[in-house]
Amino acid sequence: MFATEQLIRMALAEDLGTGDITTRATVPAGTRGEARLVAREAGVLAGFDVFCRVYRTLDAAVEIEPGAAEGALVAAGDTVAVLRGPVVSLLTGERTALNFIQHLSGIATLTRRFVDLVAGTGARIVDTRKTTPGWRSLEKYAVRVGGGKNHRMGLFDGVLIKDNHLQAAGSVAAAVRQAQELAPHTLRIEVEVESLDQLCQACEAGAEIVLLDNMELESMRRAVLWREEKFPAVLLEASGGINLHTVAAVAQTGVDFISVGALTHSARAIDLALDLVG
Amino acid sequence: MFATEQLIRMALAEDLGTGDITTRATVPAGTRGEARLVAREAGVLAGFDVFCRVYRTLDAAVEIEPGAAEGALVAAGDTVAVLRGPVVSLLTGERTALNFIQHLSGIATLTRRFVDLVAGTGARIVDTRKTTPGWRSLEKYAVRVGGGKNHRMGLFDGVLIKDNHLQAAGSVAAAVRQAQELAPHTLRIEVEVESLDQLCQACEAGAEIVLLDNMELESMRRAVLWREEKFPAVLLEASGGINLHTVAAVAQTGVDFISVGALTHSARAIDLALDLVG
Amino acid sequence: MFATEQLIRMALAEDLGTGDITTRATVPAGTRGEARLVAREAGVLAGFDVFCRVYRTLDAAVEIEPGAAEGALVAAGDTVAVLRGPVVSLLTGERTALNFIQHLSGIATLTRRFVDLVAGTGARIVDTRKTTPGWRSLEKYAVRVGGGKNHRMGLFDGVLIKDNHLQAAGSVAAAVRQAQELAPHTLRIEVEVESLDQLCQACEAGAEIVLLDNMELESMRRAVLWREEKFPAVLLEASGGINLHTVAAVAQTGVDFISVGALTHSARAIDLALDLVG
Amino acid sequence: MFATEQLIRMALAEDLGTGDITTRATVPAGTRGEARLVAREAGVLAGFDVFCRVYRTLDAAVEIEPGAAEGALVAAGDTVAVLRGPVVSLLTGERTALNFIQHLSGIATLTRRFVDLVAGTGARIVDTRKTTPGWRSLEKYAVRVGGGKNHRMGLFDGVLIKDNHLQAAGSVAAAVRQAQELAPHTLRIEVEVESLDQLCQACEAGAEIVLLDNMELESMRRAVLWREEKFPAVLLEASGGINLHTVAAVAQTGVDFISVGALTHSARAIDLALDLVG
Amino acid sequence: MFATEQLIRMALAEDLGTGDITTRATVPAGTRGEARLVAREAGVLAGFDVFCRVYRTLDAAVEIEPGAAEGALVAAGDTVAVLRGPVVSLLTGERTALNFIQHLSGIATLTRRFVDLVAGTGARIVDTRKTTPGWRSLEKYAVRVGGGKNHRMGLFDGVLIKDNHLQAAGSVAAAVRQAQELAPHTLRIEVEVESLDQLCQACEAGAEIVLLDNMELESMRRAVLWREEKFPAVLLEASGGINLHTVAAVAQTGVDFISVGALTHSARAIDLALDLVG
Amino acid sequence: MFATEQLIRMALAEDLGTGDITTRATVPAGTRGEARLVAREAGVLAGFDVFCRVYRTLDAAVEIEPGAAEGALVAAGDTVAVLRGPVVSLLTGERTALNFIQHLSGIATLTRRFVDLVAGTGARIVDTRKTTPGWRSLEKYAVRVGGGKNHRMGLFDGVLIKDNHLQAAGSVAAAVRQAQELAPHTLRIEVEVESLDQLCQACEAGAEIVLLDNMELESMRRAVLWREEKFPAVLLEASGGINLHTVAAVAQTGVDFISVGALTHSARAIDLALDLVG
Repeated sequence: MFATEQLIRMALAEDLGTGDITTRATVPAGTRGEARLVAREAGVLAGFDVFCRVYRTLDAAVEIEPGAAEGALVAAGDTVAVLRGPVVSLLTGERTALNFIQHLSGIATLTRRFVDLVAGTGARIVDTRKTTPGWRSLEKYAVRVGGGKNHRMGLFDGVLIKDNHLQAAGSVAAAVRQAQELAPHTLRIEVEVESLDQLCQACEAGAEIVLLDNMELESMRRAVLWREEKFPAVLLEASGGINLHTVAAVAQTGVDFISVGALTHSARAIDLALDLVG
Repeated sequence: MFATEQLIRMALAEDLGTGDITTRATVPAGTRGEARLVAREAGVLAGFDVFCRVYRTLDAAVEIEPGAAEGALVAAGDTVAVLRGPVVSLLTGERTALNFIQHLSGIATLTRRFVDLVAGTGARIVDTRKTTPGWRSLEKYAVRVGGGKNHRMGLFDGVLIKDNHLQAAGSVAAAVRQAQELAPHTLRIEVEVESLDQLCQACEAGAEIVLLDNMELESMRRAVLWREEKFPAVLLEASGGINLHTVAAVAQTGVDFISVGALTHSARAIDLALDLVG
Repeated sequence: MFATEQLIRMALAEDLGTGDITTRATVPAGTRGEARLVAREAGVLAGFDVFCRVYRTLDAAVEIEPGAAEGALVAAGDTVAVLRGPVVSLLTGERTALNFIQHLSGIATLTRRFVDLVAGTGARIVDTRKTTPGWRSLEKYAVRVGGGKNHRMGLFDGVLIKDNHLQAAGSVAAAVRQAQELAPHTLRIEVEVESLDQLCQACEAGAEIVLLDNMELESMRRAVLWREEKFPAVLLEASGGINLHTVAAVAQTGVDFISVGALTHSARAIDLALDLVG
Repeated sequence: MFATEQLIRMALAEDLGTGDITTRATVPAGTRGEARLVAREAGVLAGFDVFCRVYRTLDAAVEIEPGAAEGALVAAGDTVAVLRGPVVSLLTGERTALNFIQHLSGIATLTRRFVDLVAGTGARIVDTRKTTPGWRSLEKYAVRVGGGKNHRMGLFDGVLIKDNHLQAAGSVAAAVRQAQELAPHTLRIEVEVESLDQLCQACEAGAEIVLLDNMELESMRRAVLWREEKFPAVLLEASGGINLHTVAAVAQTGVDFISVGALTHSARAIDLALDLVG
Repeated sequence: MFATEQLIRMALAEDLGTGDITTRATVPAGTRGEARLVAREAGVLAGFDVFCRVYRTLDAAVEIEPGAAEGALVAAGDTVAVLRGPVVSLLTGERTALNFIQHLSGIATLTRRFVDLVAGTGARIVDTRKTTPGWRSLEKYAVRVGGGKNHRMGLFDGVLIKDNHLQAAGSVAAAVRQAQELAPHTLRIEVEVESLDQLCQACEAGAEIVLLDNMELESMRRAVLWREEKFPAVLLEASGGINLHTVAAVAQTGVDFISVGALTHSARAIDLALDLVG
Repeated sequence: MFATEQLIRMALAEDLGTGDITTRATVPAGTRGEARLVAREAGVLAGFDVFCRVYRTLDAAVEIEPGAAEGALVAAGDTVAVLRGPVVSLLTGERTALNFIQHLSGIATLTRRFVDLVAGTGARIVDTRKTTPGWRSLEKYAVRVGGGKNHRMGLFDGVLIKDNHLQAAGSVAAAVRQAQELAPHTLRIEVEVESLDQLCQACEAGAEIVLLDNMELESMRRAVLWREEKFPAVLLEASGGINLHTVAAVAQTGVDFISVGALTHSARAIDLALDLVG
């Protein structure tokens, strides 16, 4: 709950340090002004609330009037918000507030592109734990804004048994049993597999979600068919280097979820800027 | 000094939360093992020390032996380091440690590409304040690892007078004078301009660095020539949407510095992975 | 991950404040000694690691040798551990370290009593979110030590739809659908009901766990039978004022889980003491 | 001063984590509602201010109107307060806020029972340092609400010389002298004794308070008589496993203070609940 | 940006600890009152904003009306401000708030004395890094209030090459070159010298500021003359045990800056007091 | 307990910020060296442990060998300690570590002067709450090192009833009674008076310590005589602008304690320096 507050404070501290010398030197303390938050390129807006919290943390006297809804597709030139308040604060908080909203809008925009490519199939685009350290909750929020769905938040709210866990436990049956014993009954057990053979073992061991790691399209299709017949309640998730070129084909195999690390580790920022008026 | 420590703790907290259920359930507490940190694609390695600090924060019993130097150009398949310690800790810290080194190596790799493109000119590639909130020091460090040079760290260790400051101060002469009065004498005064006319005013007002914002190549060339003649001690910095396609031409205009926001806000992560041995 | 560290520091700070005046005045700084951690009454030992961390935080020179295993049933008079180190530190940390282990052993001991009472049935004793603020992870750990199983850790790693959520959503079907849409697919959906009628609606809406709140024994028995027939995959959890007198009968109804708030909000401390040796 | 704030934040963080999924999924963001804080059993109300601060920390829009005074004896069914605000916040903060007030009311209620049992004697019920780590100030506050009196807050605001200190100092005279030398003159010196002989030595050494540890009733009576005659200014405190059955008899011996660890380490929670209206 | 907030919280925590017992015991919670902040001796007022923030942190209900401007020269008996609010809060915050303003006013007052002594020369009084740990920003602020100018804030926003750095680098030329390579181009390079010979080497190596350490007046005069002739752009700073008796003579040598450690490490507090009215 | 750790971290953070650019540029990372901590003037050494903790926090590889005992009177030129370790760390930590030890030695030195002046009388020099915010524990420690005695640490571990409290309570008798009721029985009640008449009232009301505020020497003498006769157990404390010129005469009046605010708010720093060897 307080991670975003902490990140905002760290961000202001690292940018302001001992103070904004330029603004303090040149702008009289009392001057009030107005600024527009403007999109310089098209994208899906995400992080407006954090943008506002940066300013609120800096100076409660800055007022912000929204001009576009969170999740809206904005075009280059669109006014996203209007800010009014002390010019010193408008200028001092500018870069930090922009850095937040640019990063999150970048993630929402990229997510939306993936989501659009799988429209009409039953597949959902989900994120991963490959997030920017310190940003887990915010980046996963931006994925939701972009139309994606969240995978587990971390190691604590989901069970995902990978090859190394299987080795340590001795067998997939043992691993699943131990996880069922330890994990709260509110969590489903997911197992990562690399072949149809392993898929079969995982389902028989009691896996409720199976992650198909780096499989060929043809294998995924067969996995889906096999699942329909034998374990219709099991959920299938495709993963491994899936990109904008390949995602549609993966979705058409009939998997339920497609997890994409690039959503959070390689989205580029969307260009937004703050223009002082008059 | 403690910002990296704080970010590491936030990163571990957001991933581990109330604990790594899967590993706790499947891996016996006493098991020891070995893992290799391997590059899955080519890139400039940056952030190895942070990678190690993540594991040290999690469990001091994990030992890490480096296999490649910070700043080295690694190829796909190269072993970057070997880790030995409790398997539980190797697995639990994996994602967080990788998220750090992948992000920083991405920045160093992109920086190196820019730096290589201006080799042989006198221009230096510098970063900006368009960094990921919470990551300012680490990302600027990665820029140095990639061969770039840092611009000011924040609003506190440099003076950069932009249009809004000029308006508030009334004139460039007034703004420079006020900044000289307030700023410690250890700081140079930089002024942002958009035309040769403004360049001239800034230099006459006492600016010691002039940022040429979004200028045409031809204007930059003329700015360099004019500077040579009139104010040879003034430093010139080019800025504004400069990318891998345009940076070489900008460098050939003779400017001293080229600042590139994309180094830190839009570098994609380099793929590194942890492979457990045996 | 760092919550226990924070609680230990708060605990030492609130007890030591500006220093242990009595010990500082009377015990020479260099004196070394030995102390025994002794049980004054029977109970299940829990929290030995936290006990050690309190001392480690205070003074790394204190060495602790365990005399009983975590989870062991100790008797009055048993030596649980032997401590050696500076007498100043042994005395200064005593109360804080004891306060931790006494509280956690109290919870483990009470849990064990509940667990023993349902032995032989298929029911598992689970905890609730009625924990001492600041202590969630530690207390849930003590429940596991006592043989209980954890319910969700908090609001974030489980979905539990109660009456108020149903009202807001309009129907149980709508509530379950919305939860499935928002929650990561790694989480099961649980619904709280007060009648067999509601149980039926919840299962048809897709609930995967149903919490039977304050139901009569007879109703629980009928719920179990109905479940067997119609929704054998659904898990049933009994809740509501269940105590040491009633828990066995509840377990015999055939429910899968019995959640008991008293485990964490009303366990009394187990008496442990530190005796300095000669 | 900030310990309560810190505990509230820890408590919210551990319960909310990455967010209340159920409420976020099912309750529309704008819905406002009303809830009643109701006593489900009789007890002394303590912690209403902390209850309110939990909600204030979560969402300043929640308004709380008190229906019973702090320290009041409430009966099952009594409405203690009425809350109005966003339903999302009413539900999300419910458990954390209740966990605080239930725990503190439990302590105040138990304290009141002890206090009532010694009414009419000159003895005061005082607490100990056997508190729940992290809760020292709050629990000692609840003791005051229940009519008890606080002993020292920690090791820093009182001198209590126990057997181990005596051993280290060599004699009770030396220990008292050293404590007088080091401790601020605002603090009284207290010495723990187990026999009348030791009581005598302590008083002669200058002790101003003597703690009678685990003494028989008859010994306490004699200690009181001896004190009256020889050291009428010395205060006597009884301690050691005193419970609801024995406290009255102890008070009748004429001691000034009776310290009871169970007030804070073994009080069970009072059942309070939040009922949403309509 | 948050260092002052942190210091205020530490200060309140260390004074209030578990509460202001005296005030809580004697002043009814609801009583409102008025108090005057009065100067007991002459001095330059600095830190009024921090004084107010202490009270705001303690209790937002305290209102403070300023009676003298920051930086004003107040005389003994002057009313600096009038406070109105709960008497409990007025008394509880008194000492902490006074401790801040007395310390900062002491620094501003001493700075003003130095500044007045160099009036009419071109020299500016600057501070050093010899500040009270935890107080860097506040004390440097007080220096500005007293009419002084800040030197670099810390090791991060200025380059000052001293003898030890020269030794390590091998030569002044190497040291300056390396600093230019590493430091952002927004920072000037300063070199400390002890002789005219070293001054000459430093300037030729590219130093932009030269610190004349512990030089005789005559040497300083010659340094100034030599600078005028050879390196007119280089700034000269005098340092080393300069006090109220010697500062005027140093200023008359023509140096640009005189740095004085005593401003921040040895200023005595100005006596200010809080008088409750009626 | 953690306040010093926090202050050390704040101090390092404010000096190092984003890094010691000069040292990083000029000193090779691997270079090891030796440095001497040397007194530049005579004084009482205090704070050596904090000096060491600063270096330990910065770099555990720095080893420090003490050359003078805490509390020793050192002369100009004396070597206080020898440090060995990485030159980068020796230089980077220098100013912060010195700032601590210079400030604390200044306080111990001034305290010693006061203590020496009252030698042979029964009076003890005690400190006040007029300390540098954030430094309460450290400064009071330095007072003890200088031979002084501590007054209460803060508002929480002593009761001091001043004029404003008396007014609020209605009478000194009421104030003392209320304080006795609320305060733990481990605390003595102190009352501040300005006349013999008030002294009499305070003693009769039950005050155990009386603070004689700003009284004439003659009045103090009479207060002492009156106390001997009427309330020999009451302690008398003199306070109010007592300085090095007046303290001996005050001590000779026979008061028990003399509190001196200047010990902590106006001591000037003792000059200590770090000299790199070779």
